[in-house]
Amino acid sequence: MFKARIRMEILRELVEVISTLVSEVKLSVSKDGIDVKAVDPSHVAMLVLKLNKGAFEEFTGEPTEIGIDVEKLKEVLRLSKPGDVLDLQFDGGKNRLVLKVGKLTRHMAIVDPAGITDPKVPNVSPPGLAVVKMDDLRQGIRGSESISDHVTLTLEPESFTMHSEGETDRVDLSLPKAALSKLEVKEPVKSMYPLDFFSSMVKSITTSPEVTLHLGNEYPLKIEFTVADGKGEGRFLLAPRVEED
Amino acid sequence: MFKARIRMEILRELVEVISTLVSEVKLSVSKDGIDVKAVDPSHVAMLVLKLNKGAFEEFTGEPTEIGIDVEKLKEVLRLSKPGDVLDLQFDGGKNRLVLKVGKLTRHMAIVDPAGITDPKVPNVSPPGLAVVKMDDLRQGIRGSESISDHVTLTLEPESFTMHSEGETDRVDLSLPKAALSKLEVKEPVKSMYPLDFFSSMVKSITTSPEVTLHLGNEYPLKIEFTVADGKGEGRFLLAPRVEED
Amino acid sequence: MFKARIRMEILRELVEVISTLVSEVKLSVSKDGIDVKAVDPSHVAMLVLKLNKGAFEEFTGEPTEIGIDVEKLKEVLRLSKPGDVLDLQFDGGKNRLVLKVGKLTRHMAIVDPAGITDPKVPNVSPPGLAVVKMDDLRQGIRGSESISDHVTLTLEPESFTMHSEGETDRVDLSLPKAALSKLEVKEPVKSMYPLDFFSSMVKSITTSPEVTLHLGNEYPLKIEFTVADGKGEGRFLLAPRVEED
Repeated sequence: MFKARIRMEILRELVEVISTLVSEVKLSVSKDGIDVKAVDPSHVAMLVLKLNKGAFEEFTGEPTEIGIDVEKLKEVLRLSKPGDVLDLQFDGGKNRLVLKVGKLTRHMAIVDPAGITDPKVPNVSPPGLAVVKMDDLRQGIRGSESISDHVTLTLEPESFTMHSEGETDRVDLSLPKAALSKLEVKEPVKSMYPLDFFSSMVKSITTSPEVTLHLGNEYPLKIEFTVADGKGEGRFLLAPRVEED
Repeated sequence: MFKARIRMEILRELVEVISTLVSEVKLSVSKDGIDVKAVDPSHVAMLVLKLNKGAFEEFTGEPTEIGIDVEKLKEVLRLSKPGDVLDLQFDGGKNRLVLKVGKLTRHMAIVDPAGITDPKVPNVSPPGLAVVKMDDLRQGIRGSESISDHVTLTLEPESFTMHSEGETDRVDLSLPKAALSKLEVKEPVKSMYPLDFFSSMVKSITTSPEVTLHLGNEYPLKIEFTVADGKGEGRFLLAPRVEED
Repeated sequence: MFKARIRMEILRELVEVISTLVSEVKLSVSKDGIDVKAVDPSHVAMLVLKLNKGAFEEFTGEPTEIGIDVEKLKEVLRLSKPGDVLDLQFDGGKNRLVLKVGKLTRHMAIVDPAGITDPKVPNVSPPGLAVVKMDDLRQGIRGSESISDHVTLTLEPESFTMHSEGETDRVDLSLPKAALSKLEVKEPVKSMYPLDFFSSMVKSITTSPEVTLHLGNEYPLKIEFTVADGKGEGRFLLAPRVEED
């Protein structure tokens, strides 16, 4: 059984990050909150998300899994306005998730959770990290988008840089240590990533003012962020693109 | 002869409701104002509209009929800004409607009114009625639009409901008597309507804060609303869709 | 060598007027500022633009020519926000224009200026002129756009008019002398122009509150306007369309 009330803004945050990677998702409900693991169809990117009980206005959960068509959640969100609180109720027997917003009730068929890929999350521990302002990241991404379809991230003891190179032009975002809340790396590390995934991920993070990027040499990227005013946390993993020499 | 001055906001209201059903319309001018009757090409929906002389800044009319291409009225509206007053003048002899907005004058060819369908408005008196807030109706419609292409309206002594059902999901908007300004029905009545028409009609009503829905059993729907700050009134009629058992 | 700092709003103004006619442009740098001459591919319209040194936050220039892909300038503008100042630096040797906005650096390949048409600007001195408010011009253009693909401008001792005529409808914008800051013409003059060019030109002028139109009989139109808060000036020339009798 699962019964909860949640502010539309917080549900919207979740839907944004989830829909970056998948169109169907499995919510793992426990008495402490909700967990999500998702991998994109090409297995290049992964999302691990935890929403604590405290992120909800009300929450009662027993261990269960609910498979959801993300597009349907978006439909319900479009029926709500800022400040609305949504009622969610799932009674396993009927295979229906019931959502209420205002005077409107939506009975939503759920997806068989057995049919949704349950990714094994690899243990990724890149050697360096930088805490970067989202505004800086977004500008760097917009700059790269007109240049190339991939981006190179470099972490050095004194700076973090984003670099994109096209046939004739190139773009660099260079953030000195002073522009970062935190920078930890012993030796320079550098990896190249597909820009479409990196861009979608960063753009889906809507409330975190900054994120932690964990970076290594030709190594998966880990992006850590918070959701629900800190009552939840997420991380994206993104496979590197091996640079041609 | 017809000569009038009208605020752009009021002309825009008219154009909105009219263009929901037809692309050409016949304005029936009298000394008291303007009357419009229109039926959509499939004869599923009808509009009856009356704009009193008092809705105009100035008004002089002798009985005449003016056939108008609604798209051209929209073009002229796009030239005006909130607060503008438009000058309209029709001199039957020249078959031109002359519209002025600011320093701009548009000479508009009229359409032969004889070529525009003049619908016989049926005498529709459904047994029940509810006065419903437009905000509620609009939310119900948005909810239904992702579910089905028709909607079932039900009136019971204690509530009004909108219901849409798809293959797997359903949406219900339930308004108890307390949420309605008025509710009059002796026995429950229920009809199903095509959602596209119902939606376009409701969305075209832009200033009425609430509308009166007249409802029966498998019976045409009548939607009554006001225009021009109460100095005009309209009603839409919509044929029911017979429910398959 | 060319090195300058410029407010994004001013660079945006330039890019707007330039991109109306061409996709590649040659900037002629001198120690006093920047000059631009451009002609559209069909040789119907021409732009002459001068941006004084004073329009820049900082400016150091030696005579040189820089060929630029206008779309790339737009890309960089999209990376900036109101209030931003952009750094431009051109070192002829490397054939790269380096633009900085915030922490972002774009290295931009330049276009060989030898491949960009260098128009001979004709000496155009129409006999009449009117100083017209941009708001009036824009309304007249919007009105004409639904009627025809050309527009006739007439200057008379007491008025300026814009006239468009379609098969059935027509639109006139009539500005009496009192609505114009200046009107100088001895005898009535009249010319017809292609509306698409006239419209694009007028719409690309974003900060001038009014423009000076120089007009003759079946004669090129000259539109004079200011840019950069008066620290630059431009003029468009537009060939007339000979009226069929």
